[in-house]
Amino acid sequence: MKNFININNVKNYHKLVDDALILKKNKLKFNKKNIDITLGLIFFNPSLRTRMSTYKAAKNLGINVIQINLNNDGWKLEFEEGSIMNLNKSEHVKDAARVISQYCDIVGIRCFPELKKRKHDEKELIIESFRKYSKIPVINLESSCSHPLQALADAITIKENILLKKPKIVLSWAPHVKALPHAVANSFIKMALRLNYDITVANPKGYNLSKVITENIKIIHDQENAFENADLIYAKNWCCYDNYGQVIETEKNWIINKEKMKLTNDAKFMHCLPVRRNLVVTDEILDSSNSLILNQAENRIFSAQIVLKNIIDEI
Amino acid sequence: MKNFININNVKNYHKLVDDALILKKNKLKFNKKNIDITLGLIFFNPSLRTRMSTYKAAKNLGINVIQINLNNDGWKLEFEEGSIMNLNKSEHVKDAARVISQYCDIVGIRCFPELKKRKHDEKELIIESFRKYSKIPVINLESSCSHPLQALADAITIKENILLKKPKIVLSWAPHVKALPHAVANSFIKMALRLNYDITVANPKGYNLSKVITENIKIIHDQENAFENADLIYAKNWCCYDNYGQVIETEKNWIINKEKMKLTNDAKFMHCLPVRRNLVVTDEILDSSNSLILNQAENRIFSAQIVLKNIIDEI
Amino acid sequence: MKNFININNVKNYHKLVDDALILKKNKLKFNKKNIDITLGLIFFNPSLRTRMSTYKAAKNLGINVIQINLNNDGWKLEFEEGSIMNLNKSEHVKDAARVISQYCDIVGIRCFPELKKRKHDEKELIIESFRKYSKIPVINLESSCSHPLQALADAITIKENILLKKPKIVLSWAPHVKALPHAVANSFIKMALRLNYDITVANPKGYNLSKVITENIKIIHDQENAFENADLIYAKNWCCYDNYGQVIETEKNWIINKEKMKLTNDAKFMHCLPVRRNLVVTDEILDSSNSLILNQAENRIFSAQIVLKNIIDEI
Repeated sequence: MKNFININNVKNYHKLVDDALILKKNKLKFNKKNIDITLGLIFFNPSLRTRMSTYKAAKNLGINVIQINLNNDGWKLEFEEGSIMNLNKSEHVKDAARVISQYCDIVGIRCFPELKKRKHDEKELIIESFRKYSKIPVINLESSCSHPLQALADAITIKENILLKKPKIVLSWAPHVKALPHAVANSFIKMALRLNYDITVANPKGYNLSKVITENIKIIHDQENAFENADLIYAKNWCCYDNYGQVIETEKNWIINKEKMKLTNDAKFMHCLPVRRNLVVTDEILDSSNSLILNQAENRIFSAQIVLKNIIDEI
Repeated sequence: MKNFININNVKNYHKLVDDALILKKNKLKFNKKNIDITLGLIFFNPSLRTRMSTYKAAKNLGINVIQINLNNDGWKLEFEEGSIMNLNKSEHVKDAARVISQYCDIVGIRCFPELKKRKHDEKELIIESFRKYSKIPVINLESSCSHPLQALADAITIKENILLKKPKIVLSWAPHVKALPHAVANSFIKMALRLNYDITVANPKGYNLSKVITENIKIIHDQENAFENADLIYAKNWCCYDNYGQVIETEKNWIINKEKMKLTNDAKFMHCLPVRRNLVVTDEILDSSNSLILNQAENRIFSAQIVLKNIIDEI
Repeated sequence: MKNFININNVKNYHKLVDDALILKKNKLKFNKKNIDITLGLIFFNPSLRTRMSTYKAAKNLGINVIQINLNNDGWKLEFEEGSIMNLNKSEHVKDAARVISQYCDIVGIRCFPELKKRKHDEKELIIESFRKYSKIPVINLESSCSHPLQALADAITIKENILLKKPKIVLSWAPHVKALPHAVANSFIKMALRLNYDITVANPKGYNLSKVITENIKIIHDQENAFENADLIYAKNWCCYDNYGQVIETEKNWIINKEKMKLTNDAKFMHCLPVRRNLVVTDEILDSSNSLILNQAENRIFSAQIVLKNIIDEI
């Protein structure tokens, strides 16, 4: 694997998931003893799970990690080609990316969308600039529009916990008070398609995801109807895509609770975390025996580790 | 040792101090060579000594360390059970603690008090939440009301430097301009009682510590009287406990200086640092040959290291 | 080597550059396998290159690194001797430096000038305080008035890329919108003198560097005239030295571009980065085959590594 920027970088996704599961059983098997390979983790935004799970994955492989919160620890970056840099940006990504490539062997980038202009966010300016200018493999630690490490951890979790060959999965929008990105939902859908799962999206009117993503996917605006006979409910909030970046209505009645889960086929419950309890989903669901939220978080280690391993194998 | 949240977690405190002194003579004896164990250090507040000494202790043992300044690097945490999380907290400690437990083998938490409501601070909501929800051992890196790693470093320092079996120790309040926590004073007293030292607290009227802590301890409001014949003066400011969180009067005359130290039995001088020079205590005392402040700071390494070692032994 | 605070700490500068080039060919030769030596990196200001290249250098040697952004992660430091610390500084550098000396074996300090009072900045209060109070070797990661690790990386880069024995080097001031320090220019000149290069400084009137630095150096106020027959153009902005800390005029016409480079002897181009593109120098120069900016950045690793190695050899 050269880069892991989105799911398209993976040739055989089934094999990737299987390899992660094998790796999980013998975490230190490929440990290279701490000298030669350095992973740089570049954060433009906060991170708890990604920061710690990727660190742990790297340590399991015996590679060095250096983290940098770029906006605070380093210099504000310019991304426009050819601009006259006389404002508040001190360094061009062209230089930063090439320089980091000399200090690291692999680089991970976290760069959330601004959620102001759709076209701007969809350009994926930050991660694509790193891809363009870095001389080293680039890993997406959640970009404007995709979060493939989360989707891979979710795939591992599904494979471990749901024994059905073609589970009926419902990705359900759930309420939130802030405008949240589409990245997790987008990557989850792409992953489900790659693994040939039966996936439906449930969301209120006005909250449809990008048509490019949901092409060929059933979208249902009646949440209860969508839940019927589901084997897995994956909850996630996202802001409007058409009315880009807006929270037109909080739709508190879309909260996921016991009554709704009863409509399912004793479905497992997933959420990528962090989750706002009792706003998005009730405590009783999050803490139920059907909840896989901690499994998902744990599998972030093996998601990162298998990606790192595959990248290292080709360096 | 399962957790190290307060001194009560230690069965044989004398042995713990002795073991630390033995460890200090052979720092790398228990070095496990850097692969299997990861220590997470979670900071809700600034830290210099704790951050660096705990890192050094971990490296002496060969274990990995990942630090996170949680409020900046991660997400604001909710601590109330069952709350509807529709304000500014993005993640519940219940989830954060359980997730961190999957990425680390041991977790250290620094969480100062707010010094607004006594009952709130005494609940130790943050560290107790981590104890409750973590599946891994929890180390207190200074919580609202206790700082047991500092007290242990102080115990090691006393044992190294004061050869008397039952030294007369005076914990003296000293002036400051800000409201400071009671944690260091509380843990110092508890430690002195565990080691059966002769301890007296000197503080201005209005600055008595919690009665729970000072039960059976002599409190003297005349500083000079308290200093007479002391073998050790431990200086520390704290804000009012009864008039909780207030600085009713700065009491600048409580500064510790040469004249007062002359009243003692050529006493050693201790302070946990950071210290505001010439406000709390004069330069000439801090820089005198009787000052043990650097010894205390150095022993923070071995305090952390023996605690980590004992925890690792039981993992 | 005891400290690396400025170029004067180096006895044989030619040998240092040669040793760095040898080291670069066998980066892991002196790797000590990760247990005994800890390097503390203390940042009072942002850093990307220095942070990452010094980390990489340390890892190449197998030593531990702990970073701290002192103003945010730790406590505000007092630097005045004997002051009564009743304002907003919580710890005296005297104590911080001595404490850090107990947790680390080597300490690196980044401390930019305030650019308000020349005398204050020239005292180098922060790094000199660390030199005075630390019991361990101190490395300058860019202080108020010097940046010797950058100058050493530049020397390595020149040696690698310019085969002339005595190249004609022009250090050219270039435009910027902010007031920038003199540190890079000062250290570059000192390095060039140590290596007996033919160095000229080109800058607009009013932008002369300190006379102490430029004693015996030709200063030319006509940039095009200066560029004639140059073998190397080193671009850097700095604020006024006489009119200390001011940007009297942006002098946009001092931008370095293709037309000016044509006046040279097919000169190589250098800049320490970060560089504001198309303000300081045009894209076409930065991205030309004569540009050595990435080589300089890469050599920051070997500059730091040879310094660390020499220090370790004498610990």
